Amino acid sequence: MTTTANCDLCKLLAGFDAAPAGAASQLVWRDDRLAVVLVDEPGYPGYTRVVWQDHVREMTDLSPEDRDHVMWAVWAVEQAQRTTMAPHKVNVASFGNMTPHVHWHVIPRYTDDAHFPNPTWGAKQREADPAAVAARAALLPALRAAIVLNLK
Amino acid sequence: MTTTANCDLCKLLAGFDAAPAGAASQLVWRDDRLAVVLVDEPGYPGYTRVVWQDHVREMTDLSPEDRDHVMWAVWAVEQAQRTTMAPHKVNVASFGNMTPHVHWHVIPRYTDDAHFPNPTWGAKQREADPAAVAARAALLPALRAAIVLNLK
Repeated sequence: MTTTANCDLCKLLAGFDAAPAGAASQLVWRDDRLAVVLVDEPGYPGYTRVVWQDHVREMTDLSPEDRDHVMWAVWAVEQAQRTTMAPHKVNVASFGNMTPHVHWHVIPRYTDDAHFPNPTWGAKQREADPAAVAARAALLPALRAAIVLNLK
Repeated sequence: MTTTANCDLCKLLAGFDAAPAGAASQLVWRDDRLAVVLVDEPGYPGYTRVVWQDHVREMTDLSPEDRDHVMWAVWAVEQAQRTTMAPHKVNVASFGNMTPHVHWHVIPRYTDDAHFPNPTWGAKQREADPAAVAARAALLPALRAAIVLNLK
């Protein structure tokens, strides 16, 4: 495994070594190449990251087979979000400007969320309705189960 | 071909029907499934979109084979940007909140660009240096050639 001491994602993955996936963990699924992690982003239950295990900068630094493996996991997450959370749209992005370690954001979006129709990195449009957010958060156990099922 | 009258990307693609790819066109490459388009985004020469021809909402609405075809084109663009423009990082994203027609943004990023390290949808950090932007714009013919070569 290639790791870098000052990389937040390398540290996150190392933290999972001692803590297996489970309902209380951010970690939803992991194999020897990547991890699927639920993100605790206020207002955005279901926000998921797919994180490559090795500290690799760009998708085109990976082999074509490894790239396909990453995207297979991203689509498994997107499909699980659609099946269990019925978002208006799914947003998928890989930046890495601050943390140049291959990772994908997979975000279920709703027309009443705080930033819609902007990306979540854009200008906030409104306060999200706490009841709507709570109803979505109640779907997280179903989302976790669907992600694991899709990755079988 | 599935098109939708009020979709900006359907309109863009229809406009290319009468104008083949060439140095004066935004259109860099096209097959029967997707188009690769240079975006005229101020301060961001090399900003490229990969646009699915049919009006399809989500990547997981496509067949696995079609999804692979989209990502093959995205990685061909990323590799061409890296080879010809040497960006600090490449950003890749698919949102579709306002235009729910499958399309990918592939953006060469530099530490001195207007938004770095934010995504280009985030808060502006500075004015980009016009000379640096002009030097990158001068690489566009090489970028177009490299994209076409990678898609052969």
